[in-house]
Amino acid sequence: MKTVDLNCDLGESFGSFVVGQDELILKHITSANIACGYHAGDHNVMSKTVKLAKENGVSIGAHPGFPDLLGFGRRNIQTDREDIYNFVIYQISALQGFCQLHDVPLHHVKPHGALFNMASRDGVMAEAIAQAVYDTDPSLVLFGLSGGELTKAGMKVGLTVANEVFADRTYQPDGTLTPRTQENALIHDTDRAIEQVLTMVKEGTVRAVNGSIVPIQADTICVHGDGANALAFAQKLQETLIAEGITLSPVKKGNS
Amino acid sequence: MKTVDLNCDLGESFGSFVVGQDELILKHITSANIACGYHAGDHNVMSKTVKLAKENGVSIGAHPGFPDLLGFGRRNIQTDREDIYNFVIYQISALQGFCQLHDVPLHHVKPHGALFNMASRDGVMAEAIAQAVYDTDPSLVLFGLSGGELTKAGMKVGLTVANEVFADRTYQPDGTLTPRTQENALIHDTDRAIEQVLTMVKEGTVRAVNGSIVPIQADTICVHGDGANALAFAQKLQETLIAEGITLSPVKKGNS
Amino acid sequence: MKTVDLNCDLGESFGSFVVGQDELILKHITSANIACGYHAGDHNVMSKTVKLAKENGVSIGAHPGFPDLLGFGRRNIQTDREDIYNFVIYQISALQGFCQLHDVPLHHVKPHGALFNMASRDGVMAEAIAQAVYDTDPSLVLFGLSGGELTKAGMKVGLTVANEVFADRTYQPDGTLTPRTQENALIHDTDRAIEQVLTMVKEGTVRAVNGSIVPIQADTICVHGDGANALAFAQKLQETLIAEGITLSPVKKGNS
Amino acid sequence: MKTVDLNCDLGESFGSFVVGQDELILKHITSANIACGYHAGDHNVMSKTVKLAKENGVSIGAHPGFPDLLGFGRRNIQTDREDIYNFVIYQISALQGFCQLHDVPLHHVKPHGALFNMASRDGVMAEAIAQAVYDTDPSLVLFGLSGGELTKAGMKVGLTVANEVFADRTYQPDGTLTPRTQENALIHDTDRAIEQVLTMVKEGTVRAVNGSIVPIQADTICVHGDGANALAFAQKLQETLIAEGITLSPVKKGNS
Repeated sequence: MKTVDLNCDLGESFGSFVVGQDELILKHITSANIACGYHAGDHNVMSKTVKLAKENGVSIGAHPGFPDLLGFGRRNIQTDREDIYNFVIYQISALQGFCQLHDVPLHHVKPHGALFNMASRDGVMAEAIAQAVYDTDPSLVLFGLSGGELTKAGMKVGLTVANEVFADRTYQPDGTLTPRTQENALIHDTDRAIEQVLTMVKEGTVRAVNGSIVPIQADTICVHGDGANALAFAQKLQETLIAEGITLSPVKKGNS
Repeated sequence: MKTVDLNCDLGESFGSFVVGQDELILKHITSANIACGYHAGDHNVMSKTVKLAKENGVSIGAHPGFPDLLGFGRRNIQTDREDIYNFVIYQISALQGFCQLHDVPLHHVKPHGALFNMASRDGVMAEAIAQAVYDTDPSLVLFGLSGGELTKAGMKVGLTVANEVFADRTYQPDGTLTPRTQENALIHDTDRAIEQVLTMVKEGTVRAVNGSIVPIQADTICVHGDGANALAFAQKLQETLIAEGITLSPVKKGNS
Repeated sequence: MKTVDLNCDLGESFGSFVVGQDELILKHITSANIACGYHAGDHNVMSKTVKLAKENGVSIGAHPGFPDLLGFGRRNIQTDREDIYNFVIYQISALQGFCQLHDVPLHHVKPHGALFNMASRDGVMAEAIAQAVYDTDPSLVLFGLSGGELTKAGMKVGLTVANEVFADRTYQPDGTLTPRTQENALIHDTDRAIEQVLTMVKEGTVRAVNGSIVPIQADTICVHGDGANALAFAQKLQETLIAEGITLSPVKKGNS
Repeated sequence: MKTVDLNCDLGESFGSFVVGQDELILKHITSANIACGYHAGDHNVMSKTVKLAKENGVSIGAHPGFPDLLGFGRRNIQTDREDIYNFVIYQISALQGFCQLHDVPLHHVKPHGALFNMASRDGVMAEAIAQAVYDTDPSLVLFGLSGGELTKAGMKVGLTVANEVFADRTYQPDGTLTPRTQENALIHDTDRAIEQVLTMVKEGTVRAVNGSIVPIQADTICVHGDGANALAFAQKLQETLIAEGITLSPVKKGNS
């Protein structure tokens, strides 16, 4: 019996700036990655979102990002290992405060945006993040790009990791994502996107852009929370996976 | 045998902006209030300062402030109870992360600047802060202006509180501080400042500006960390108190 | 022949945080107040919004606010005259850069949110703002609450001022707005709101909450740009005013 | 008769965070680069620093940087041409407001930190900055690394440029700076640093790390404003240049 997790970035509003449709998307996912105030989110949004996720029975993760509200954490920022290590600890710990307040465990950590992407390729950044997660709570699950440096660093340090795959991105023959700068990077067709997910979950493979069949580990699927069709897609993905007999469930936590 | 605590605000540097002489002042105090990134401090400074305080055997406190780096948390900002409650939890929790990292307990919470001053007079703000501290960890000691609303709210919610007094500020007949807008608000003479502290600690009284003797509870003394004579004053205060047979020691924590 | 200006706050998006429906609302107003990066807006949004306003033939104003992105400039912040004077100059000047770039004159200044409200009552703040506007460009029109301290300070310093009135707020017998804390502060009925505007523009009076008729100067009407019915209301207000033979036009600039 | 400019970064304080010794260093330089609120500086500091520079007869330049207070503008941030173009216009324009207020012309623009370094190598960034400067005021002088992409882009767009050289950095045979990651990147010996400047100004050459003599254009010399010996070095450099018969003077502005 196959099992997979559906995760989505939540709690990205900031003050009066409202982002996403968190209450609706929570019905269709099993894990929420909650922004921690550096690239998005604020202390009020964090408390509210933790509470909301708990009420929906969705696993809660910290979603640390670069300190870059203007760039929404999507811009590469060149910084050092120590800085990354410390801001990941800071952000996870702040979210832990609200988890404790609402009496719900923190379950995982998924770095955001540019931090996620850079750490997928850069072993030093990956190690800094993995170590920060481990040193904060070794039972937390670390989410990273399937087969990337982050999950490798997580396993090395002793964390349970979740290999993340994408429904709407194409893959290269070496198992990496096609860069967004290339024309065929995105899958716009809903049916094709869902089929790609099914194959990844059931077969453990993905068809690369050159037609070759590539092995891929799919522990968790990234579901987008904003955009016109995000909600409809999330719902359809959820329904299809269930109809195919796949269990939707968070990745099991590690040992403390 | 009389006991009193000497506390000082530390970790107020931010990125390349360096504030204070933390390493030196730590030799002369028993409690450090560490900024948490809202009015001052950042994740790197916090980690370093927690480590430094631990190495000096100084009790560690969170020093939450308004989200106002430009104003250094010294400007009154009108906000609501929920906002205050949440940003106090956020800041304490972030600091707790670094305490856990360096394997040292978080001991107390002292609100910073305008937040401290407003909460000394405003019962609603005081209650929001006290509840946030209690809900994060009921064993934390809450520092507030001696006889003000904050210590009252702390006691009401079940926290151990520390009544803070000032060496270099004059007092009114009702036990409140003379507002800084008044000419005689500050005590510039070192000897007079130290004598005021001695009387407060040993007699539990202070001579108000009109000459009357006012009862005051002195659990902890605010020591300034910056300014030309800060270090010399801290050292002299420390030496005089010890010479007078007063034990310098952090306020005992509450029960968890 | 009666003339009035319809103004609306625009350019309030920030980075990836999108606010308002600027392109649509511009069809129904004569003056745009563009955020300058302190409470909302950023350099990219400012440039785009100036261009958009120019293309729609709408007069461009600077909309300076408190440096408080988290509070969207809606929180009272206690600061001094010099600070206000300087941050108003900073924000106006930054917007002037984009006006010059797009070859369109800067027309007016309307303080935002808490800055606007505080300056309507506080003569010192009002004077600081008026002087900053005058010292930047004496031909700029200063928008303030009709009859409040800000327009008074503007006239005193030699600026052309625009008295702003509200369609959806009730008035007190002394011509001030009913505080939002009171139940009857808002007018929810569209027809009643439009009728209030018509009376203010045509008769120069408003019916206060106690039924008395109060004189009021209506040079410009505040039109809200967000909210579910903002666009429909703006359109109906525009159509009604035109149908009543009222000319919609920006307030004439002063002399340089 | 040889002429050269001595420039220094000023106005880098932020709120209560004090940086530099601006009043003292102004006695020894001919051009001041004033931070504009993105990586350092704030509206109050800007106004004060413009006034101070004017009083000392020092030419005033805008010193735009990345929006990164935490990183002091020293971290590479990946962003696009339009963003750079707009934030340079924003920052220059804000400073122009204070120049107009104090009735002193804005003279030049020198990008700060990572923005300066990246633009020295990246033609697209260089062009964005040069175009922003030109579109704001074509008479402004653009400061860039001697022989780098920024001065090239400045000349191409029609700006007067100033080639900047360093007293305390070593040079490669191709005229570029030795990267700071290399051991011999810095010149610690004061006499050697001053001799390097003299040769650059008088001969138009520099001795590279391999001993070869490389041609270099030295229009302006970067003087550091902080650090223990900054002031003493600035003074000695100034005295030596004057003693050698070299005229210290700002670079002549271009045509509007």
